[in-house]
Amino acid sequence: MSVQEVALAGRGHLTFSHPPVLTGWATVAGKKETEGPLGRKFDRIVRDEAMGERTYERAERQLLKGAVELLLSIEGHHATDVDLMFAGDLLDQLVTANFAARDIGIPLVGVYGACATSSEAILLAAMAVASGAARRAVAATASHHLSAERQYRYPIELGVQRLPTSQWTATGGAAFMVEDGTKEPSGKAPSRNDSKALRITCATVGRVQDYGLKDPNNMGAAMAPAAADTILRHLLGSGRRVEDYDLILTGDLGRIGHPLLEDLLAEERIHPKERLQDAGIRLYSEDQNVDAGGSGAACSALVMGAMVLPSMRKGELRRVLLVATGSLHSPRTYQQGESIPTIAHAVEVEAVE
Amino acid sequence: MSVQEVALAGRGHLTFSHPPVLTGWATVAGKKETEGPLGRKFDRIVRDEAMGERTYERAERQLLKGAVELLLSIEGHHATDVDLMFAGDLLDQLVTANFAARDIGIPLVGVYGACATSSEAILLAAMAVASGAARRAVAATASHHLSAERQYRYPIELGVQRLPTSQWTATGGAAFMVEDGTKEPSGKAPSRNDSKALRITCATVGRVQDYGLKDPNNMGAAMAPAAADTILRHLLGSGRRVEDYDLILTGDLGRIGHPLLEDLLAEERIHPKERLQDAGIRLYSEDQNVDAGGSGAACSALVMGAMVLPSMRKGELRRVLLVATGSLHSPRTYQQGESIPTIAHAVEVEAVE
Repeated sequence: MSVQEVALAGRGHLTFSHPPVLTGWATVAGKKETEGPLGRKFDRIVRDEAMGERTYERAERQLLKGAVELLLSIEGHHATDVDLMFAGDLLDQLVTANFAARDIGIPLVGVYGACATSSEAILLAAMAVASGAARRAVAATASHHLSAERQYRYPIELGVQRLPTSQWTATGGAAFMVEDGTKEPSGKAPSRNDSKALRITCATVGRVQDYGLKDPNNMGAAMAPAAADTILRHLLGSGRRVEDYDLILTGDLGRIGHPLLEDLLAEERIHPKERLQDAGIRLYSEDQNVDAGGSGAACSALVMGAMVLPSMRKGELRRVLLVATGSLHSPRTYQQGESIPTIAHAVEVEAVE
Repeated sequence: MSVQEVALAGRGHLTFSHPPVLTGWATVAGKKETEGPLGRKFDRIVRDEAMGERTYERAERQLLKGAVELLLSIEGHHATDVDLMFAGDLLDQLVTANFAARDIGIPLVGVYGACATSSEAILLAAMAVASGAARRAVAATASHHLSAERQYRYPIELGVQRLPTSQWTATGGAAFMVEDGTKEPSGKAPSRNDSKALRITCATVGRVQDYGLKDPNNMGAAMAPAAADTILRHLLGSGRRVEDYDLILTGDLGRIGHPLLEDLLAEERIHPKERLQDAGIRLYSEDQNVDAGGSGAACSALVMGAMVLPSMRKGELRRVLLVATGSLHSPRTYQQGESIPTIAHAVEVEAVE
């Protein structure tokens, strides 16, 4: 082992000299999500949007809790085998993560980065494991279309018309397990019949960006500058070129934000082409009436867990950069006429023998 | 340097084998706070509750931003000298921390633990520095009485009567700088004319507790079990007795929660006596009409920055355990009839020559 587990290369860019390993994950997806192109790739499908609960907020909680419990079950661990849980969600005061952690019992570090919460949680879990603060940590997030709509915009019962720039908050939950890569796995992981180990090699903490956009129905445009800033800083910190990645997966820029990000990167003479993909575009197909695409804390987490990580395990993708993006406004700041600050956190995952 | 900078002793308990150092801090306090027993100990006093802004939410933002900028100025650093900022607040979607970080420019890790955000942010900053992820990190939080009242309860303009169990959300902001203890300080810190270095030796991440209490006007009672659980786990993890501490400072249990915590600890045959103090009781005097005491994310942070850490610098206190406590509910979960889950995160600080 080296003297320093985590090295700093540029502000906010972390390199793990002994990379922690993403040993497992689990996804729970709603009905609409399973009707999309990722179809049956989710670990669990929830057809009842209320999940038998009396409120959608309680249903959202079940998504996060269900993903963590499923992950523990897949990996053959109990909650007491996990040292720390990094979790967050979109609801006021992170009530999804807080109430779920109450039921699960793992010590909780509540984190918030809006729809960038997924990569923020994985990044911190990796830092905790790489530093020795945890042998095994879980990163989890969830979002629910119906609780998000009534908190951020209007209850869907009102029938307010969506805009072409609107994005569809994904209903789902996902949990990821990060463990010390220098030790033998103690659970039965890798539990999936695949061969590659997935290492978290480096990460970049986002800086808040704000180009002055004020339309909460066009968050893709607001978030594109945050994704650009984080990708550029990650390339600088890691010393890599975009060509070194098989996939750079942004969180949920959607069909409006994605080409804007391409433009911003082109200004820096960076042309990632097909390797730059967006989870908000990949989660749903165009005929699903999601307007500009998917969004929500679960969006990038679902695409990672259902599509990207399994492909990496199989060796189809070698190096992937997850750049989850988040709009950091609140309904109140919008009503008060404020612009929308945004952030993106990047986590780099590498498949090795 | 040891092989592992951070060691795990019990789930969620972290020991820093080469403790990071709390090199500086800054407090910004409102008018009422400066009329309390800590009087003129705050670094900056804000007499205008609106701080010249058009909304109280914008004023709250200035409290956090002001604390960080004051800290940078005291320590002789620019924002670009700081690698990471861990910050959070009580407002929906952490808009105080998010908007402040936009203006400050330091890469942001948004954290939420309600009024336990102060110790959660310091704990993560210490983990980041101890692990090498940051050479210098800032932990910051803020709360504002008038923005909190209208978000969690009623706008004060309504004149709704307070209850005897109510606590008074503190108006203030505080920022703490954590640096690598193995390196020479590069700024002009220690900038205050005192001699002791303040090391963060260990910390405990809280587990969510919920005894089924549902009254958001009595958060002290709801939070006492979280404080008890974290203190017990911290003692277990650190191998210390309460007698080893000169001060165990809980966040904001107030006059209702504080004796309940004493009862819960007594059940475990632990009697901390006078060394167990509560920031919610210390921040205001009884004649200030704060009912059960102070609260808010700034409460424990202000008492640490204005009272505890300066005393430690002078050698008056040697070992202190900060146990900030937080109620993790939202107005919506309360309205939906849910109970109040709570959490407490502990950070241990030691004054050495």
